[in-house]
Amino acid sequence: MEIDVNQSTQDSQASDKKSSGNALQRMLQPSSIAIVGASSDLNKVSGRPLKYLLDKGYKGAIYPINPRTQDIAGVAAVPDIASLPMGVDLAVVVLPAEQIEATVIELGKKKVPVAVVFASGFGEMGPEGKAMEASLQQAAEKAGIRILGPNCLGLFNAFNRAIATFSQYADGEMSAGPVGFISQSGAFGTAICALSRARQMGFGFFVNTGNEVDISVMELMQEMLALPELKVCSGYLEGLHNGHALAGVAEQAMQLDKPIVLTKVGRFGAGARAAASHTGSLAGEDRVFDGLVQQKGIVRARNEEHMLDIVEVLLHCERPGGKNLAIITQSGGAGVLLADRAEEVGLNVPALSETTRKAIAQVIPGFGATGNPVDVTAQFVAQPSILTESTIIALNDPDIHVGVIWLQLMHGFTDKLLEVFAEIKSRVQKPFVVVWVSASEKAITGLRERGIVVFRNGDAAVDALAAVAQYAQARRRWTLDSAQKQPGITKQPRPSRVGEGKPVPTLQALALLKAFNIPSADAELATSARAAVEIAKRVAPSGAVALKIESMDVLHKTDVGGVVLNLSTEDTIGQAFSDITERVKKAKPEARQDGVLVQAMSSGRVEFILGLKRDPVFGMVIMMGLGGVWIEVLKDVVFCQCPVTPAEAAEALERLKGAALLEAFRGQPAVNKDALIKAIVNLSQLGKACEDWLSELDLNPILLSEHGLVAVDVAMVA
Amino acid sequence: MEIDVNQSTQDSQASDKKSSGNALQRMLQPSSIAIVGASSDLNKVSGRPLKYLLDKGYKGAIYPINPRTQDIAGVAAVPDIASLPMGVDLAVVVLPAEQIEATVIELGKKKVPVAVVFASGFGEMGPEGKAMEASLQQAAEKAGIRILGPNCLGLFNAFNRAIATFSQYADGEMSAGPVGFISQSGAFGTAICALSRARQMGFGFFVNTGNEVDISVMELMQEMLALPELKVCSGYLEGLHNGHALAGVAEQAMQLDKPIVLTKVGRFGAGARAAASHTGSLAGEDRVFDGLVQQKGIVRARNEEHMLDIVEVLLHCERPGGKNLAIITQSGGAGVLLADRAEEVGLNVPALSETTRKAIAQVIPGFGATGNPVDVTAQFVAQPSILTESTIIALNDPDIHVGVIWLQLMHGFTDKLLEVFAEIKSRVQKPFVVVWVSASEKAITGLRERGIVVFRNGDAAVDALAAVAQYAQARRRWTLDSAQKQPGITKQPRPSRVGEGKPVPTLQALALLKAFNIPSADAELATSARAAVEIAKRVAPSGAVALKIESMDVLHKTDVGGVVLNLSTEDTIGQAFSDITERVKKAKPEARQDGVLVQAMSSGRVEFILGLKRDPVFGMVIMMGLGGVWIEVLKDVVFCQCPVTPAEAAEALERLKGAALLEAFRGQPAVNKDALIKAIVNLSQLGKACEDWLSELDLNPILLSEHGLVAVDVAMVA
Repeated sequence: MEIDVNQSTQDSQASDKKSSGNALQRMLQPSSIAIVGASSDLNKVSGRPLKYLLDKGYKGAIYPINPRTQDIAGVAAVPDIASLPMGVDLAVVVLPAEQIEATVIELGKKKVPVAVVFASGFGEMGPEGKAMEASLQQAAEKAGIRILGPNCLGLFNAFNRAIATFSQYADGEMSAGPVGFISQSGAFGTAICALSRARQMGFGFFVNTGNEVDISVMELMQEMLALPELKVCSGYLEGLHNGHALAGVAEQAMQLDKPIVLTKVGRFGAGARAAASHTGSLAGEDRVFDGLVQQKGIVRARNEEHMLDIVEVLLHCERPGGKNLAIITQSGGAGVLLADRAEEVGLNVPALSETTRKAIAQVIPGFGATGNPVDVTAQFVAQPSILTESTIIALNDPDIHVGVIWLQLMHGFTDKLLEVFAEIKSRVQKPFVVVWVSASEKAITGLRERGIVVFRNGDAAVDALAAVAQYAQARRRWTLDSAQKQPGITKQPRPSRVGEGKPVPTLQALALLKAFNIPSADAELATSARAAVEIAKRVAPSGAVALKIESMDVLHKTDVGGVVLNLSTEDTIGQAFSDITERVKKAKPEARQDGVLVQAMSSGRVEFILGLKRDPVFGMVIMMGLGGVWIEVLKDVVFCQCPVTPAEAAEALERLKGAALLEAFRGQPAVNKDALIKAIVNLSQLGKACEDWLSELDLNPILLSEHGLVAVDVAMVA
Repeated sequence: MEIDVNQSTQDSQASDKKSSGNALQRMLQPSSIAIVGASSDLNKVSGRPLKYLLDKGYKGAIYPINPRTQDIAGVAAVPDIASLPMGVDLAVVVLPAEQIEATVIELGKKKVPVAVVFASGFGEMGPEGKAMEASLQQAAEKAGIRILGPNCLGLFNAFNRAIATFSQYADGEMSAGPVGFISQSGAFGTAICALSRARQMGFGFFVNTGNEVDISVMELMQEMLALPELKVCSGYLEGLHNGHALAGVAEQAMQLDKPIVLTKVGRFGAGARAAASHTGSLAGEDRVFDGLVQQKGIVRARNEEHMLDIVEVLLHCERPGGKNLAIITQSGGAGVLLADRAEEVGLNVPALSETTRKAIAQVIPGFGATGNPVDVTAQFVAQPSILTESTIIALNDPDIHVGVIWLQLMHGFTDKLLEVFAEIKSRVQKPFVVVWVSASEKAITGLRERGIVVFRNGDAAVDALAAVAQYAQARRRWTLDSAQKQPGITKQPRPSRVGEGKPVPTLQALALLKAFNIPSADAELATSARAAVEIAKRVAPSGAVALKIESMDVLHKTDVGGVVLNLSTEDTIGQAFSDITERVKKAKPEARQDGVLVQAMSSGRVEFILGLKRDPVFGMVIMMGLGGVWIEVLKDVVFCQCPVTPAEAAEALERLKGAALLEAFRGQPAVNKDALIKAIVNLSQLGKACEDWLSELDLNPILLSEHGLVAVDVAMVA
C-alpha cells in the first residue's frame, strides 16, 4: 500500500491533539477565568492574578475560588470547583504541587479546557517530581483538560487584559503590541517582557510554558500565528521537544508572512552541555536546529536584545527586497564600522551607481562622500535637506534594498532632526533604520513615536537588518518553492531480513538509492574469485574496480583489511578476493561473510558527503558537507529537515564555508551543482519515505565533477 | 659593517622628532595657553576654548589673542602673537585655513612648542587643500613647532582642566578618569567621550588628531602611556600612518602594564574599501594590522561600545590569570546563553571541581545547579547568602580565573543586592562582573559607585572579559619572552647585481635562507644536461630531483613549461633539461636563461606557506598559513611584524583556523612544531635584516613532517 506521507503527517498532526486549537485559543482569549485557590490578600502570589485582572480592566467573568470568603475585592467568590458554571474558558491554579492532580481532575468535570499551573515542585525537583509530573499528565489527558506548566508564570493577553500570571511584569503599564512571545523560562521571560516594554513595544501576548508537561512551544506558536492581532511571533527556547512540528509551524508562518523570531540557548559545545544539564531533556543537537530554522525561514536571534531588535524592525519596516545596504552617516569612520559589520553578517554595501553619486554630490558639501557609505558631513544640522535628499536619493538607487542613517549627539537639534526623519519616512518606500549614538531619551522616544526604528549602536542595527533581510530572502525562496509543489512521497518498507540497529546489505541499500535516482557506483556481490573477475568485466568494462568485504557483522571494512582499491587485471582481482576473505577471517573470525562487493572505481574532483539521520527531536534530517578537512577539521556541515526542496538545497549549499570549491576553482570547471541539488532532494525524499525504520545512511564520499556525481560508498543502518 | 638594527631603530625614532616628547608633554599638560583668534563671543567656536577654560577652572595662564579688545570675560587680551611672552606651552589657533601657515611661523618665533589647529579646508578638501597642508607641514618644521590637526577638535586634559577644544562635550560635567583617549574622528570621538561620561567613566585626556599633518596617534599614544595619571589608553582609528612605531609603543605599554585598547575601522573588504576612500590614505591592510596588534598584546575592540566595555573592566578588575569563566545565574537558560558566547569568543566554561560543586550544593536550593553555569535560583532574593557564598566558592575553584554574575529585574531589592555585591567584591580576589538585565538606573549607578562593572546584556560582558583575558595572556607571554632576550639582528646587504623590484637569483636566495638557518631543499644550477645529471647525484644521491628554469625574466616558471618534477634517472634528467630550455625559449624568446636549477625532491605531510612583505605602513611583516584550500579558499593566514619571538610565533600559529592539522591528526603524528616556530623566528629575522631592500619573499610550499620541515620553493624580490 502506498501512503502519501505529507498527507498522513497533516492528518496525524490534526488528530493528535483533538480540538487542541480550540482549547488553546480559549486559553489565549478567555471570556471567563476561574482562579483556583485565590487568596484574599491581593499581594500574595495567589492573590495577584485577580488583582491584575481587576487593575488592567479584564471584562470577562472572573471566578475566584475560595471557600473561606464571600467576595474578594468586590468579586463574588466561589466556594469550590463543583460550584463553577460549566465550561469556564481558563482555570488559573495557584495551589501547591500536591493538590494539582486532584484539582485538574475536578476542573475536567466542569469542562474547563485548560488549566494554568503555577506550582513548582515537579520535574525540576528530580525523580520524585518527575513521577508526579507523569501522573499529572495522565490524569489531565483522562480528564480531557490541557495543562500549561507546571512550574510556570502563566500567560497574559494584553489586548483583552486576561492576565493569568503572577509575574510582577503586570505591575507596570501594559500596552498591547502586535507581537506574541513564548518563553520556556519564567524569570528571563519576564525580564525580556520588561526590556520590550522599555522600548515602547509591549508584547500583545506572553506565555511561559514552564515544565511543558503538555502544552509545548510549537503548539502555542501555531495558535499565536493564527491570532489576527499579531504580526510577529517570538520565543525564548532552552530546549525543543517536538521538533517534528517545526516544519508545519514554519510553513504556516510563511503562508501568513508572520515572521517567527527565536532565541535558543545552547549554540556551542559548552552552552549545549549546560543546556542539556539545565533542561534535563532532549534539547536536540543545536547544529541540527540551526540548519532547520535556516531552511524553514525562521529567524534565529543570538540573544534577547538581538531578538527584540529584529522584532522591532519587522514591525516597523517594509521587508527589504535584497541584501544591499546603503549607509548614510555624518562620520566617515562610523560608515566604515557599519560596512565592516554588514559584511561580517552577510549584507552587501555596494557602490552606488554613477547616477546616484552625481545626484548626491548635488546636495552634500564638497568634502562629503558620495560612495557607499555616504558621508553627508555635520553640515546637515544647518541644512537638513542635505540629509533628507541624500538619503532619499541613495535609497532610490535600484541596487539598494535597505538603508541605515547614522548620527551622534546633536542634543540641541533633536526637534529639528525628528522632523527630518519623519519627512524621510514619509517620502521613501524602502526600509531604513536610524543609529543615533549617545542620543537623548527624547530623540529615542520621538523616533519611536514616529514609527522609526532607532538603535544606539551601529552593530545592533546592522545585525537586525541582516536578520530581516535573511527572512525576506527566505520568504521569496518559499514563494518560488511553493509554486512548484513537491510530489507526495511514497513510504518505503523496511528491507527484508534487516533488524533494528542492523546494517542494511549494500546491494539493498544501492537498490534504494537507485529507486530514488541517486547515482552510485555500480556494484555486485561476488562469492568467489572467479565471480569477482566476471563482475568486474560487467561493472567496469574498461576501468578499475574496488573490492570490499560484505558482512552484516563488519561495520568498518577498512579496519579488518576488507577493502582493496584500484584493481584492473584478472590476477589482481582474484588475489584481492582471497586476501580480503582471509584477512577478515583472521581479524574477525565470528563474522559471517556474505561475499565481496565488486564496485567500479569512480572519479571526481571534489569529495562530498551526504548523510541521513533520524533525529530524536526533529525526525529525519539530511546532513551535507565537503569531505576531507572541511568536515574533519572545520566541522563544516549543514543540516536540513527531510524532505528538502531544490531551493532549500541550493541555499543550504551556500551556507557551507567551502562553497567556493563547488564553483570554478584553480582553473577547474565548476562541479555540476544541479546534479548535487537533485541528489540532495532525492536523498531527502528517501529519508522521508524510510523515516519509520531508517536510523542512518552515509554516502561518503560522493565524488563531484563538472559532469555529475557518483556515490562511492554507502553505509545504511536500519 | 654590521649594524644592530634594533639599536638603530631606536636611535632614529629618538632623533626623528627631536624633543618631541617634551613638546607633546607640554601640550598635554600645559601651564599656559594662548588662544589665537579668541572671540569675545564665548558661544562661538572661536570663543569656546576660553569659556571652557574659565568654566572648568583651568589654573594656568591664559592669553586670548584679540587686537580689538582689552579683555575677554575678565581675562586680559593680547593684541598679537608678537606680544606673547616667550615659551607659552600651547597655542590654540582658531583662525581660518588661509591664516594658519603665517600664524604658525609667528608662534614658532615665540618658542611655542605646539599649535592646535581647528581649521578645516585642508587635505580633506582635495588636491588644493593637500598642497596647503604640505606647505603648512614644511613651515611648521622650519619654525620648530609641532602641529595637532588641522581639521581637528583639539584636546582636553580633565585633570588640570586644560580644555583646548571647541567640542560641545566640554559643555557638560568633566570628571577626570584614569583613561586616555585618542580619536582620529572629531565627531565620533566626541560621541565616544559622551558615552564614556554616561558610564561615569570620564576620560582624563582626549585628543583628536584630525588630518595628522604632524602629530600622529602612535606618537601621542607613547606620551599618554607615560602619564602617571593614566592606567589605560584607548583609541579610535580610521587609518594608521606610522605603523612602524606600533611595536615600540606596544612594548612600552607592556613594560608599564598599561593596556592599549583600539577600535580600528575597516575590518573587512567592504569596510576597508570604504576606509581607504574615507581617509584617502594608506590605511594598511587590515589583516596585517590585526595580526600585529594580537602579536603585540594590543587589545582590538570591535566598536565603540566594546571598547568602553573593555576599558571599564580593565579599570576595575584584576587581570584574570587565565581564560576559565565561572557563570553564576538565577536562570539556567541565561547561564547557557553566557556559556554560548564565552565559547564563541575564546573563553572556557569548565566544569567546577567535585569539591567546589559539593560546597555550592551546601548553600543553594536543591533545584539549583552546581555545575558551571551555577544556577542559584531566585531564592537568593530571600536569602542573599546563597548568592554571596556560591559566588565566592565558585571563584575560589583553582581552575576558575574570572566570574560573571547574571540577574534580572529585582527592582524592589536593589538596595539589598547592592550590599550583596559589595560584600562579594570585598571577599573575592579574582575578577568578576555583573550582568543585570532590565536593571534600574539606581542599580547600575549603585554598582558603579562600588567599583563593580555592570552590563545590561550578557554578550557584552563576556566579550569584554574575553578581551581582557586575552590581554592578560599576552602580557604573561611578553613577560616570559622578555626574559629570553632576542639577539641583535645583523643587517644584510642587497645581493650583488639585483635591482629594485627584480627577482633575486634562486641560489642567492637559498644562501640567504641557509645563513638564517631556514631548511631548504638542496639545489644547484646546471648549464648543461650533463651537469644536471651530475648535480642530481650530489643533491639527491638516492632520491628524485626537480628541474626548474632559472631566469631573471621568468617569474612564473610553470607558466612557461619551466618545471619538471620527480626525476630519478639520468635519461629523464637529461631529457628534462633540454625540454625545459626548449619550451622556455619558445614561450619567452627574449628571456635570458641562466640555466636550470636541479633540486632534491622533498616530502612532508602538511603544506605550509611563509612569506615576507615590506608593508608600506608597518614595515617588514611575515605571513604564515597552511597551503591548499586553507589559504586559497579560507584565506587563513596570520601576519606578524618582524622580528617575531618564539612565543609570538607559537601564539600566531594557534590563531590559524587549520591549527589542528599541525597536531596529531587521523593517525598521523604531529608535525615538528618547534622546527616550524624556529623557521618563523629565523625568517622574521631575515626579514628585519633585509628590510632596507627586500620587497617580498615567498616560501611556498614548505613541507612539514614530524621530523622537521623543508622549504621547497623560494621566490624573492628585491
